[in-house]
Amino acid sequence: MDIGFIGLGIMGAPMAKNLLAAGHRLAVYDIIESSMDALASLGAYKAKSPKDVAERSSLVITMLPNSPDVKQAVIGPDGVLEGAKPGLALIDMSSISPDASKEIYAACQAKGVEALDAPVSGGEPKAIDGTLAIMVGGNEETFEKWKSLLLCMGSSAILCGPAGSGNVAKLVNQILVAANIAACAEGLTLAQKAGADPYVVLEAIKGGLAGSTALNAKAPMMLAENWKPGFKIDLHTKDLGNVMAAAEFFGSPLLLSPILLKMFKSLQESGFGQEDHSALKKCYDLELLK
Amino acid sequence: MDIGFIGLGIMGAPMAKNLLAAGHRLAVYDIIESSMDALASLGAYKAKSPKDVAERSSLVITMLPNSPDVKQAVIGPDGVLEGAKPGLALIDMSSISPDASKEIYAACQAKGVEALDAPVSGGEPKAIDGTLAIMVGGNEETFEKWKSLLLCMGSSAILCGPAGSGNVAKLVNQILVAANIAACAEGLTLAQKAGADPYVVLEAIKGGLAGSTALNAKAPMMLAENWKPGFKIDLHTKDLGNVMAAAEFFGSPLLLSPILLKMFKSLQESGFGQEDHSALKKCYDLELLK
Repeated sequence: MDIGFIGLGIMGAPMAKNLLAAGHRLAVYDIIESSMDALASLGAYKAKSPKDVAERSSLVITMLPNSPDVKQAVIGPDGVLEGAKPGLALIDMSSISPDASKEIYAACQAKGVEALDAPVSGGEPKAIDGTLAIMVGGNEETFEKWKSLLLCMGSSAILCGPAGSGNVAKLVNQILVAANIAACAEGLTLAQKAGADPYVVLEAIKGGLAGSTALNAKAPMMLAENWKPGFKIDLHTKDLGNVMAAAEFFGSPLLLSPILLKMFKSLQESGFGQEDHSALKKCYDLELLK
Repeated sequence: MDIGFIGLGIMGAPMAKNLLAAGHRLAVYDIIESSMDALASLGAYKAKSPKDVAERSSLVITMLPNSPDVKQAVIGPDGVLEGAKPGLALIDMSSISPDASKEIYAACQAKGVEALDAPVSGGEPKAIDGTLAIMVGGNEETFEKWKSLLLCMGSSAILCGPAGSGNVAKLVNQILVAANIAACAEGLTLAQKAGADPYVVLEAIKGGLAGSTALNAKAPMMLAENWKPGFKIDLHTKDLGNVMAAAEFFGSPLLLSPILLKMFKSLQESGFGQEDHSALKKCYDLELLK
Protein backbone atom coordinates (compact mmCIF):
# COMPACT_ATOMS: atom_id res chain seq x y z
CA MET A 1 0.00 0.00 0.00
CA ASP A 2 1.07 3.62 -0.50
CA ILE A 3 1.54 5.10 2.94
CA GLY A 4 2.67 8.57 3.93
CA PHE A 5 4.59 9.07 7.16
CA ILE A 6 5.08 12.52 8.67
CA GLY A 7 7.41 12.95 11.65
CA LEU A 8 10.61 10.89 11.72
CA GLY A 9 11.83 11.43 15.26
CA ILE A 10 12.96 8.89 17.85
CA MET A 11 9.58 7.13 17.62
CA GLY A 12 8.50 7.90 14.04
CA ALA A 13 11.66 6.70 12.29
CA PRO A 14 11.59 3.09 13.60
CA MET A 15 7.80 2.92 13.12
CA ALA A 16 8.22 3.99 9.47
CA LYS A 17 10.96 1.38 9.04
CA ASN A 18 8.62 -1.33 10.27
CA LEU A 19 6.07 -0.30 7.62
CA LEU A 20 8.77 -0.50 4.92
CA ALA A 21 9.81 -3.90 6.29
CA ALA A 22 6.18 -5.07 5.99
CA GLY A 23 6.38 -4.32 2.25
CA HIS A 24 4.57 -0.98 2.04
CA ARG A 25 5.68 1.92 -0.21
CA LEU A 26 6.42 5.02 1.85
CA ALA A 27 6.44 8.76 1.22
CA VAL A 28 8.06 10.45 4.22
CA TYR A 29 8.27 14.00 5.49
CA ASP A 30 10.02 15.73 8.36
CA ILE A 31 10.85 19.40 8.90
CA ILE A 32 14.44 18.27 9.56
CA GLU A 33 15.49 17.20 6.07
CA SER A 34 18.34 14.95 7.23
CA SER A 35 15.83 12.88 9.23
CA MET A 36 14.39 11.71 5.89
CA ASP A 37 17.71 10.39 4.54
CA ALA A 38 17.82 7.15 6.55
CA LEU A 39 14.34 6.25 5.31
CA ALA A 40 15.15 7.37 1.75
CA SER A 41 18.16 5.03 1.75
CA LEU A 42 15.71 2.19 2.50
CA GLY A 43 13.58 3.17 -0.49
CA ALA A 44 11.17 5.78 0.86
CA TYR A 45 10.28 8.86 -1.20
CA LYS A 46 11.40 12.18 0.33
CA ALA A 47 8.34 14.40 0.09
CA LYS A 48 8.36 18.20 -0.15
CA SER A 49 5.48 18.85 2.23
CA PRO A 50 2.64 17.09 4.07
CA LYS A 51 0.49 17.98 1.05
CA ASP A 52 2.98 16.18 -1.23
CA VAL A 53 2.85 13.17 1.13
CA ALA A 54 -0.96 13.07 0.98
CA GLU A 55 -1.10 13.32 -2.82
CA ARG A 56 0.94 10.09 -3.09
CA SER A 57 -0.82 8.08 -0.35
CA SER A 58 -3.97 6.11 0.53
CA LEU A 59 -3.11 6.45 4.22
CA VAL A 60 -1.13 9.15 6.03
CA ILE A 61 0.35 8.53 9.47
CA THR A 62 1.52 11.44 11.62
CA MET A 63 3.93 11.07 14.57
CA LEU A 64 4.69 14.57 15.81
CA PRO A 65 5.62 16.24 19.11
CA ASN A 66 2.37 17.93 20.15
CA SER A 67 -1.07 19.28 19.17
CA PRO A 68 0.07 22.41 17.23
CA ASP A 69 2.48 20.33 15.12
CA VAL A 70 -0.26 17.90 14.10
CA LYS A 71 -2.75 20.70 13.36
CA GLN A 72 -0.11 22.45 11.24
CA ALA A 73 0.73 19.28 9.30
CA VAL A 74 -2.88 18.24 8.72
CA ILE A 75 -5.01 21.42 8.60
CA GLY A 76 -2.31 24.04 7.88
CA PRO A 77 -1.11 25.41 4.51
CA ASP A 78 0.52 22.73 2.34
CA GLY A 79 -0.98 20.28 4.81
CA VAL A 80 -2.36 16.77 4.42
CA LEU A 81 -5.94 17.91 3.77
CA GLU A 82 -4.82 20.11 0.86
CA GLY A 83 -3.38 17.05 -0.87
CA ALA A 84 -6.06 14.55 0.14
CA LYS A 85 -7.36 12.26 -2.62
CA PRO A 86 -10.87 10.77 -2.30
CA GLY A 87 -10.77 7.92 0.24
CA LEU A 88 -7.64 9.08 2.05
CA ALA A 89 -7.32 8.02 5.71
CA LEU A 90 -5.33 9.77 8.44
CA ILE A 91 -4.00 8.03 11.53
CA ASP A 92 -2.43 10.43 14.01
CA MET A 93 -0.18 8.43 16.32
CA SER A 94 1.19 11.47 18.16
CA SER A 95 0.46 11.96 21.86
CA ILE A 96 -1.58 15.14 21.82
CA SER A 97 -4.54 16.69 23.60
CA PRO A 98 -7.83 14.82 22.93
CA ASP A 99 -9.64 18.07 22.15
CA ALA A 100 -7.10 18.70 19.38
CA SER A 101 -7.77 15.14 18.15
CA LYS A 102 -11.48 15.95 18.01
CA GLU A 103 -10.76 19.16 16.06
CA ILE A 104 -8.56 17.29 13.57
CA TYR A 105 -11.16 14.53 13.24
CA ALA A 106 -13.87 17.12 12.45
CA ALA A 107 -11.66 18.85 9.85
CA CYS A 108 -10.97 15.47 8.22
CA GLN A 109 -14.66 14.53 8.24
CA ALA A 110 -15.47 17.80 6.45
CA LYS A 111 -13.06 16.80 3.65
CA GLY A 112 -14.26 13.17 3.46
CA VAL A 113 -11.07 11.87 5.09
CA GLU A 114 -11.54 9.12 7.68
CA ALA A 115 -9.41 9.65 10.79
CA LEU A 116 -8.20 7.86 13.90
CA ASP A 117 -6.15 9.06 16.86
CA ALA A 118 -3.79 6.26 17.86
CA PRO A 119 -1.10 7.28 20.36
CA VAL A 120 1.28 4.66 21.64
CA SER A 121 3.08 3.61 24.76
CA GLY A 122 6.26 1.61 25.11
CA GLY A 123 8.93 4.07 24.02
CA GLU A 124 11.80 3.72 21.55
CA PRO A 125 12.68 0.04 22.25
CA LYS A 126 9.13 -1.09 21.49
CA ALA A 127 8.92 1.24 18.48
CA ILE A 128 12.00 -0.53 17.09
CA ASP A 129 10.64 -4.00 17.90
CA GLY A 130 7.19 -3.15 16.55
CA THR A 131 5.63 -4.06 19.88
CA LEU A 132 4.03 -0.75 20.90
CA ALA A 133 0.72 -0.66 22.76
CA ILE A 134 -1.61 1.38 20.57
CA MET A 135 -4.65 3.18 22.04
CA VAL A 136 -7.19 4.17 19.42
CA GLY A 137 -10.03 6.68 19.16
CA GLY A 138 -12.48 6.89 16.25
CA ASN A 139 -15.29 4.94 14.72
CA GLU A 140 -15.34 1.16 14.80
CA GLU A 141 -15.51 0.61 11.04
CA THR A 142 -12.41 2.74 10.43
CA PHE A 143 -10.61 1.01 13.29
CA GLU A 144 -11.36 -2.49 11.95
CA LYS A 145 -10.19 -1.42 8.50
CA TRP A 146 -6.76 -0.27 9.74
CA LYS A 147 -6.17 -2.52 12.74
CA SER A 148 -3.95 -5.03 10.95
CA LEU A 149 -1.83 -2.21 9.56
CA LEU A 150 -1.41 -0.75 13.06
CA LEU A 151 -0.15 -4.15 14.17
CA CYS A 152 2.88 -3.71 11.86
CA MET A 153 4.01 -1.23 14.52
CA GLY A 154 2.49 -2.59 17.71
CA SER A 155 1.63 -5.77 19.55
CA SER A 156 -1.81 -4.48 20.53
CA ALA A 157 -4.31 -1.95 19.18
CA ILE A 158 -7.39 -1.28 21.30
CA LEU A 159 -10.34 0.95 20.36
CA CYS A 160 -11.11 3.01 23.47
CA GLY A 161 -14.06 5.06 22.18
CA PRO A 162 -14.92 7.85 19.71
CA ALA A 163 -12.44 10.37 18.25
CA GLY A 164 -10.03 11.62 20.92
CA SER A 165 -10.37 8.49 23.07
CA GLY A 166 -6.96 7.14 22.10
CA ASN A 167 -5.38 10.27 23.52
CA VAL A 168 -7.70 10.15 26.53
CA ALA A 169 -6.41 6.64 27.29
CA LYS A 170 -2.84 7.84 26.83
CA LEU A 171 -3.39 10.73 29.26
CA VAL A 172 -5.03 8.43 31.83
CA ASN A 173 -1.92 6.28 31.49
CA GLN A 174 0.36 9.29 32.01
CA ILE A 175 -1.54 10.47 35.10
CA LEU A 176 -1.17 7.02 36.66
CA VAL A 177 2.50 6.68 35.77
CA ALA A 178 3.37 10.16 37.08
CA ALA A 179 1.45 9.67 40.32
CA ASN A 180 2.90 6.22 40.93
CA ILE A 181 6.46 7.44 40.36
CA ALA A 182 5.95 10.53 42.53
CA ALA A 183 4.49 8.37 45.32
CA CYS A 184 7.53 6.04 45.11
CA ALA A 185 9.77 9.08 45.43
CA GLU A 186 7.80 10.51 48.37
CA GLY A 187 7.75 7.17 50.21
CA LEU A 188 11.39 6.29 49.61
CA THR A 189 12.47 9.74 50.77
CA LEU A 190 10.55 9.24 54.04
CA ALA A 191 12.17 5.82 54.51
CA GLN A 192 15.63 7.31 53.94
CA LYS A 193 15.12 10.35 56.17
CA ALA A 194 13.73 8.13 58.95
CA GLY A 195 16.79 5.85 58.86
CA ALA A 196 14.96 2.74 57.62
CA ASP A 197 16.60 0.62 54.92
CA PRO A 198 14.81 1.72 51.72
CA TYR A 199 15.70 -1.51 49.86
CA VAL A 200 14.18 -3.61 52.64
CA VAL A 201 11.13 -1.34 52.85
CA LEU A 202 10.63 -1.85 49.10
CA GLU A 203 10.92 -5.61 49.54
CA ALA A 204 8.43 -5.49 52.43
CA ILE A 205 5.72 -3.62 50.53
CA LYS A 206 6.01 -4.48 46.85
CA GLY A 207 3.97 -7.67 47.09
CA GLY A 208 0.93 -5.92 48.60
CA LEU A 209 -1.57 -3.27 47.56
CA ALA A 210 1.29 -0.74 47.18
CA GLY A 211 2.83 -2.84 44.41
CA SER A 212 3.09 -1.44 40.90
CA THR A 213 5.02 -1.75 37.69
CA ALA A 214 6.37 1.76 38.30
CA LEU A 215 7.58 0.78 41.79
CA ASN A 216 9.43 -2.23 40.40
CA ALA A 217 10.92 -0.30 37.49
CA LYS A 218 11.63 3.13 38.97
CA ALA A 219 12.33 2.74 42.71
CA PRO A 220 15.61 0.87 42.06
CA MET A 221 16.63 3.64 39.60
CA MET A 222 15.92 6.26 42.28
CA LEU A 223 17.97 4.40 44.89
CA ALA A 224 20.85 3.98 42.41
CA GLU A 225 20.46 7.62 41.31
CA ASN A 226 20.29 6.42 37.71
CA TRP A 227 18.39 8.99 35.65
CA LYS A 228 19.04 7.58 32.18
CA PRO A 229 15.84 7.76 30.08
CA GLY A 230 13.53 5.75 29.59
CA PHE A 231 10.89 8.37 29.29
CA LYS A 232 12.02 11.95 29.57
CA ILE A 233 10.84 14.63 32.00
CA ASP A 234 10.27 16.96 29.01
CA LEU A 235 7.82 14.55 27.35
CA HIS A 236 5.94 13.74 30.53
CA THR A 237 5.66 17.49 31.24
CA LYS A 238 4.08 17.93 27.81
CA ASP A 239 1.63 15.09 28.50
CA LEU A 240 0.58 16.55 31.85
CA GLY A 241 0.04 19.90 30.13
CA ASN A 242 -2.33 18.04 27.81
CA VAL A 243 -4.02 16.48 30.84
CA MET A 244 -4.77 20.00 32.11
CA ALA A 245 -6.12 21.06 28.70
CA ALA A 246 -8.25 17.93 28.32
CA ALA A 247 -9.66 18.18 31.84
CA GLU A 248 -10.61 21.79 31.20
CA PHE A 249 -12.20 20.86 27.86
CA PHE A 250 -14.21 17.94 29.23
CA GLY A 251 -14.96 19.48 32.64
CA SER A 252 -13.14 16.76 34.59
CA PRO A 253 -11.77 17.67 38.05
CA LEU A 254 -8.05 17.19 38.73
CA LEU A 255 -6.50 16.95 42.18
CA LEU A 256 -3.13 15.25 41.71
CA SER A 257 -2.20 16.29 38.17
CA PRO A 258 -1.68 20.00 38.95
CA ILE A 259 0.89 19.23 41.66
CA LEU A 260 2.49 16.56 39.45
CA LEU A 261 2.82 19.12 36.64
CA LYS A 262 4.42 21.58 39.09
CA MET A 263 6.94 18.91 40.05
CA PHE A 264 7.79 18.19 36.42
CA LYS A 265 8.11 21.89 35.59
CA SER A 266 10.42 22.45 38.56
CA LEU A 267 12.67 19.70 37.18
CA GLN A 268 12.68 21.29 33.72
CA GLU A 269 13.54 24.67 35.24
CA SER A 270 16.42 23.03 37.12
CA GLY A 271 17.82 21.60 33.89
CA PHE A 272 16.71 17.96 34.26
CA GLY A 273 14.31 17.87 31.29
CA GLN A 274 16.30 15.23 29.42
CA GLU A 275 16.45 12.84 32.38
CA ASP A 276 14.13 9.90 33.07
CA HIS A 277 10.85 10.68 34.85
CA SER A 278 12.18 8.72 37.84
CA ALA A 279 14.12 11.96 38.49
CA LEU A 280 10.92 13.11 40.22
CA LYS A 281 12.92 11.88 43.24
CA LYS A 282 15.01 15.05 42.91
CA CYS A 283 11.95 17.18 43.76
CA TYR A 284 12.33 15.65 47.23
CA ASP A 285 16.10 15.33 47.50
CA LEU A 286 16.73 18.89 46.33
CA GLU A 287 13.44 20.22 47.78
CA LEU A 288 12.74 21.95 44.47
CA LEU A 289 9.21 23.01 45.41
CA LYS A 290 10.00 24.38 48.85
CA MET B 1 4.77 -19.30 76.45
CA ASP B 2 2.88 -16.76 78.56
CA ILE B 3 1.83 -13.97 76.22
CA GLY B 4 -0.18 -10.85 76.94
CA PHE B 5 -2.38 -9.36 74.25
CA ILE B 6 -3.79 -5.84 74.55
CA GLY B 7 -6.34 -4.62 71.99
CA LEU B 8 -8.93 -7.12 70.76
CA GLY B 9 -10.51 -5.26 67.85
CA ILE B 10 -11.14 -6.43 64.30
CA MET B 11 -7.44 -7.21 63.87
CA GLY B 12 -6.33 -8.00 67.42
CA ALA B 13 -8.98 -10.64 68.19
CA PRO B 14 -8.12 -13.02 65.32
CA MET B 15 -4.38 -12.46 65.88
CA ALA B 16 -4.79 -13.42 69.56
CA LYS B 17 -6.79 -16.49 68.52
CA ASN B 18 -3.93 -17.61 66.28
CA LEU B 19 -1.55 -17.39 69.24
CA LEU B 20 -3.92 -19.51 71.35
CA ALA B 21 -4.20 -21.99 68.47
CA ALA B 22 -0.38 -22.21 68.39
CA GLY B 23 -0.49 -23.44 72.01
CA HIS B 24 0.43 -20.27 73.91
CA ARG B 25 -1.19 -19.18 77.19
CA LEU B 26 -2.81 -15.75 76.83
CA ALA B 27 -3.69 -12.91 79.19
CA VAL B 28 -5.86 -10.47 77.28
CA TYR B 29 -7.02 -6.91 77.86
CA ASP B 30 -9.33 -4.49 76.07
CA ILE B 31 -11.07 -1.35 77.32
CA ILE B 32 -14.31 -2.87 75.99
CA GLU B 33 -14.83 -5.71 78.46
CA SER B 34 -17.10 -7.75 76.20
CA SER B 35 -14.30 -7.91 73.60
CA MET B 36 -12.42 -10.16 76.04
CA ASP B 37 -15.20 -12.73 76.38
CA ALA B 38 -14.65 -14.52 73.06
CA LEU B 39 -10.99 -15.02 73.94
CA ALA B 40 -11.80 -16.00 77.53
CA SER B 41 -14.16 -18.69 76.21
CA LEU B 42 -11.14 -20.13 74.36
CA GLY B 43 -9.12 -20.22 77.57
CA ALA B 44 -7.52 -16.76 77.78
CA TYR B 45 -7.26 -14.94 81.11
CA LYS B 46 -9.26 -11.68 81.31
CA ALA B 47 -6.83 -9.18 82.78
CA LYS B 48 -7.77 -6.10 84.82
CA SER B 49 -5.29 -3.70 83.22
CA PRO B 50 -2.23 -3.59 80.92
CA LYS B 51 -0.15 -3.77 84.13
CA ASP B 52 -1.97 -6.98 85.10
CA VAL B 53 -1.28 -8.35 81.60
CA ALA B 54 2.44 -7.58 81.91
CA GLU B 55 2.77 -9.16 85.37
CA ARG B 56 1.60 -12.50 83.91
CA SER B 57 3.61 -12.46 80.67
CA SER B 58 7.06 -12.91 79.14
CA LEU B 59 5.91 -11.08 76.02
CA VAL B 60 3.22 -8.42 75.61
CA ILE B 61 1.69 -7.65 72.21
CA THR B 62 -0.29 -4.45 71.65
CA MET B 63 -2.72 -3.95 68.75
CA LEU B 64 -4.39 -0.60 69.30
CA PRO B 65 -5.93 2.16 67.15
CA ASN B 66 -3.27 4.87 67.26
CA SER B 67 -0.22 6.40 68.98
CA PRO B 68 -1.95 7.83 72.10
CA ASP B 69 -3.63 4.46 72.80
CA VAL B 70 -0.31 2.61 72.69
CA LYS B 71 1.45 5.22 74.84
CA GLN B 72 -1.38 5.03 77.38
CA ALA B 73 -1.29 1.22 77.52
CA VAL B 74 2.50 0.97 77.74
CA ILE B 75 3.79 4.09 79.49
CA GLY B 76 0.61 5.31 81.23
CA PRO B 77 -0.68 4.55 84.75
CA ASP B 78 -1.44 0.84 85.27
CA GLY B 79 0.44 0.35 82.01
CA VAL B 80 2.65 -2.46 80.76
CA LEU B 81 5.88 -0.93 82.09
CA GLU B 82 4.46 -0.76 85.63
CA GLY B 83 3.93 -4.51 85.59
CA ALA B 84 7.07 -5.47 83.66
CA LYS B 85 9.06 -8.41 85.06
CA PRO B 86 12.79 -8.65 84.25
CA GLY B 87 13.22 -9.87 80.68
CA LEU B 88 9.79 -8.79 79.45
CA ALA B 89 9.50 -8.00 75.75
CA LEU B 90 6.97 -5.71 74.05
CA ILE B 91 5.90 -6.02 70.43
CA ASP B 92 3.63 -3.19 69.32
CA MET B 93 1.78 -4.31 66.19
CA SER B 94 -0.41 -1.21 65.95
CA SER B 95 -0.08 1.16 63.00
CA ILE B 96 1.12 4.32 64.69
CA SER B 97 3.48 7.21 64.06
CA PRO B 98 7.16 6.12 63.95
CA ASP B 99 8.17 8.94 66.31
CA ALA B 100 5.73 7.50 68.87
CA SER B 101 7.35 4.08 68.28
CA LYS B 102 10.75 5.60 69.03
CA GLU B 103 9.41 7.19 72.23
CA ILE B 104 7.90 3.90 73.38
CA TYR B 105 11.10 2.05 72.50
CA ALA B 106 13.15 4.50 74.61
CA ALA B 107 10.77 4.17 77.58
CA CYS B 108 11.03 0.39 77.33
CA GLN B 109 14.83 0.50 77.11
CA ALA B 110 14.94 2.59 80.28
CA LYS B 111 13.04 -0.18 82.11
CA GLY B 112 15.09 -3.04 80.62
CA VAL B 113 12.21 -4.12 78.36
CA GLU B 114 13.16 -5.07 74.80
CA ALA B 115 10.77 -3.67 72.20
CA LEU B 116 9.83 -3.98 68.54
CA ASP B 117 7.35 -2.06 66.40
CA ALA B 118 5.70 -4.52 64.03
CA PRO B 119 2.69 -3.12 62.16
CA VAL B 120 0.94 -5.31 59.64
CA SER B 121 -0.76 -5.15 56.31
CA GLY B 122 -3.38 -7.44 54.85
CA GLY B 123 -6.49 -6.54 56.83
CA GLU B 124 -9.00 -8.72 58.65
CA PRO B 125 -9.01 -11.72 56.24
CA LYS B 126 -5.24 -12.16 56.56
CA ALA B 127 -5.40 -11.58 60.32
CA ILE B 128 -7.86 -14.49 60.48
CA ASP B 129 -5.75 -16.68 58.22
CA GLY B 130 -2.52 -15.77 60.01
CA THR B 131 -1.01 -14.55 56.75
CA LEU B 132 -0.36 -10.89 57.54
CA ALA B 133 2.70 -9.10 56.15
CA ILE B 134 4.61 -7.85 59.19
CA MET B 135 7.01 -4.89 58.95
CA VAL B 136 9.39 -4.69 61.87
CA GLY B 137 11.55 -1.99 63.47
CA GLY B 138 14.03 -2.61 66.28
CA ASN B 139 17.36 -4.30 66.85
CA GLU B 140 18.32 -7.44 64.98
CA GLU B 141 18.87 -9.67 68.02
CA THR B 142 15.38 -8.93 69.38
CA PHE B 143 13.89 -9.44 65.93
CA GLU B 144 15.55 -12.85 65.47
CA LYS B 145 14.39 -13.91 68.93
CA TRP B 146 10.71 -13.19 68.20
CA LYS B 147 10.49 -13.78 64.45
CA SER B 148 9.07 -17.30 64.67
CA LEU B 149 6.43 -16.12 67.12
CA LEU B 150 5.42 -13.30 64.73
CA LEU B 151 4.97 -15.95 62.05
CA CYS B 152 2.08 -17.44 64.11
CA MET B 153 0.21 -14.35 62.90
CA GLY B 154 1.80 -13.58 59.54
CA SER B 155 3.28 -15.18 56.46
CA SER B 156 6.23 -12.78 56.43
CA ALA B 157 8.13 -10.67 58.97
CA ILE B 158 10.79 -8.32 57.63
CA LEU B 159 13.17 -6.18 59.70
CA CYS B 160 13.19 -2.74 58.02
CA GLY B 161 15.64 -0.92 60.31
CA PRO B 162 15.95 0.44 63.86
CA ALA B 163 13.02 1.26 66.20
CA GLY B 164 10.21 2.99 64.31
CA SER B 165 11.16 1.47 60.94
CA GLY B 166 8.25 -0.96 60.93
CA ASN B 167 5.87 1.96 61.09
CA VAL B 168 7.94 3.88 58.54
CA ALA B 169 7.50 0.97 56.10
CA LYS B 170 3.79 0.88 56.86
CA LEU B 171 3.45 4.61 56.16
CA VAL B 172 5.43 4.33 52.91
CA ASN B 173 2.98 1.59 51.96
CA GLN B 174 0.00 3.80 52.80
CA ILE B 175 1.34 6.76 50.79
CA LEU B 176 1.74 4.52 47.74
CA VAL B 177 -1.66 2.89 48.12
CA ALA B 178 -3.44 6.22 48.59
CA ALA B 179 -1.67 7.86 45.64
CA ASN B 180 -2.26 4.89 43.35
CA ILE B 181 -5.97 4.74 44.21
CA ALA B 182 -6.39 8.52 43.84
CA ALA B 183 -4.62 8.42 40.45
CA CYS B 184 -6.97 5.60 39.32
CA ALA B 185 -9.91 7.76 40.35
CA GLU B 186 -8.55 10.86 38.59
CA GLY B 187 -7.79 8.96 35.40
CA LEU B 188 -11.06 7.02 35.26
CA THR B 189 -13.02 10.21 35.82
CA LEU B 190 -11.26 11.84 32.86
CA ALA B 191 -12.01 8.79 30.70
CA GLN B 192 -15.68 8.91 31.70
CA LYS B 193 -16.08 12.67 31.24
CA ALA B 194 -14.37 12.49 27.83
CA GLY B 195 -16.76 9.77 26.62
CA ALA B 196 -14.15 7.01 26.33
CA ASP B 197 -15.02 3.52 27.56
CA PRO B 198 -13.36 3.34 31.00
CA TYR B 199 -13.30 -0.48 31.02
CA VAL B 200 -11.50 -0.53 27.68
CA VAL B 201 -9.12 2.23 28.78
CA LEU B 202 -8.27 0.12 31.84
CA GLU B 203 -7.64 -2.89 29.63
CA ALA B 204 -5.46 -0.79 27.33
CA ILE B 205 -3.17 0.54 30.06
CA LYS B 206 -3.00 -2.03 32.84
CA GLY B 207 -0.24 -4.09 31.23
CA GLY B 208 2.14 -1.13 30.94
CA LEU B 209 3.98 1.22 33.28
CA ALA B 210 0.62 2.45 34.64
CA GLY B 211 -0.17 -1.05 35.95
CA SER B 212 -0.54 -1.62 39.68
CA THR B 213 -2.13 -3.90 42.21
CA ALA B 214 -4.34 -0.99 43.28
CA LEU B 215 -5.49 -0.43 39.68
CA ASN B 216 -6.45 -4.10 39.32
CA ALA B 217 -8.18 -4.25 42.70
CA LYS B 218 -9.81 -0.84 43.01
CA ALA B 219 -10.63 0.46 39.52
CA PRO B 220 -13.30 -2.24 38.97
CA MET B 221 -14.80 -1.34 42.38
CA MET B 222 -14.95 2.33 41.35
CA LEU B 223 -16.64 1.52 38.04
CA ALA B 224 -19.15 -0.75 39.82
CA GLU B 225 -19.61 1.89 42.58
CA ASN B 226 -18.92 -0.81 45.15
CA TRP B 227 -17.57 0.82 48.32
CA LYS B 228 -17.62 -2.21 50.62
CA PRO B 229 -14.45 -2.26 52.73
CA GLY B 230 -11.70 -3.61 52.36
CA PHE B 231 -9.75 -0.90 54.05
CA LYS B 232 -11.76 1.97 55.46
CA ILE B 233 -11.43 5.68 54.69
CA ASP B 234 -11.26 6.34 58.48
CA LEU B 235 -8.21 4.13 58.92
CA HIS B 236 -6.39 5.44 55.88
CA THR B 237 -7.09 9.01 57.08
CA LYS B 238 -5.44 8.12 60.39
CA ASP B 239 -2.42 6.67 58.59
CA LEU B 240 -2.00 9.77 56.44
CA GLY B 241 -2.18 11.90 59.57
CA ASN B 242 0.72 9.81 60.87
CA VAL B 243 2.54 10.38 57.57
CA MET B 244 2.31 14.13 58.21
CA ALA B 245 3.57 13.71 61.79
CA ALA B 246 6.43 11.42 60.75
CA ALA B 247 7.50 13.67 57.88
CA GLU B 248 7.57 16.66 60.24
CA PHE B 249 9.56 14.66 62.82
CA PHE B 250 12.14 13.35 60.34
CA GLY B 251 12.25 16.49 58.15
CA SER B 252 11.04 14.69 55.03
CA PRO B 253 9.27 16.76 52.35
CA LEU B 254 5.75 15.77 51.28
CA LEU B 255 4.08 16.85 48.05
CA LEU B 256 1.27 14.34 47.42
CA SER B 257 0.36 13.29 50.96
CA PRO B 258 -1.12 16.65 52.03
CA ILE B 259 -3.59 16.67 49.12
CA LEU B 260 -4.33 12.96 49.66
CA LEU B 261 -5.10 13.67 53.33
CA LYS B 262 -7.41 16.53 52.27
CA MET B 263 -9.24 14.13 49.98
CA PHE B 264 -9.66 11.55 52.75
CA LYS B 265 -10.83 14.19 55.23
CA SER B 266 -13.40 15.51 52.76
CA LEU B 267 -14.80 11.99 52.50
CA GLN B 268 -14.99 11.66 56.29
CA GLU B 269 -16.75 15.01 56.53
CA SER B 270 -19.25 13.82 53.92
CA GLY B 271 -20.04 10.71 55.96
CA PHE B 272 -18.09 8.12 53.95
CA GLY B 273 -15.55 7.20 56.65
CA GLN B 274 -16.70 3.58 56.88
CA GLU B 275 -16.44 2.97 53.13
CA ASP B 276 -13.53 1.41 51.28
CA HIS B 277 -10.66 3.73 50.31
CA SER B 278 -11.65 3.20 46.67
CA ALA B 279 -14.37 5.75 47.51
CA LEU B 280 -11.68 8.35 46.77
CA LYS B 281 -13.50 8.27 43.41
CA LYS B 282 -16.28 10.26 45.10
CA CYS B 283 -13.91 13.21 45.57
CA TYR B 284 -14.12 13.51 41.78
CA ASP B 285 -17.70 12.43 41.16
CA LEU B 286 -19.11 14.71 43.85
CA GLU B 287 -16.36 17.35 43.44
CA LEU B 288 -15.90 17.37 47.21
CA LEU B 289 -12.81 19.60 47.14
CA LYS B 290 -14.15 22.22 44.78
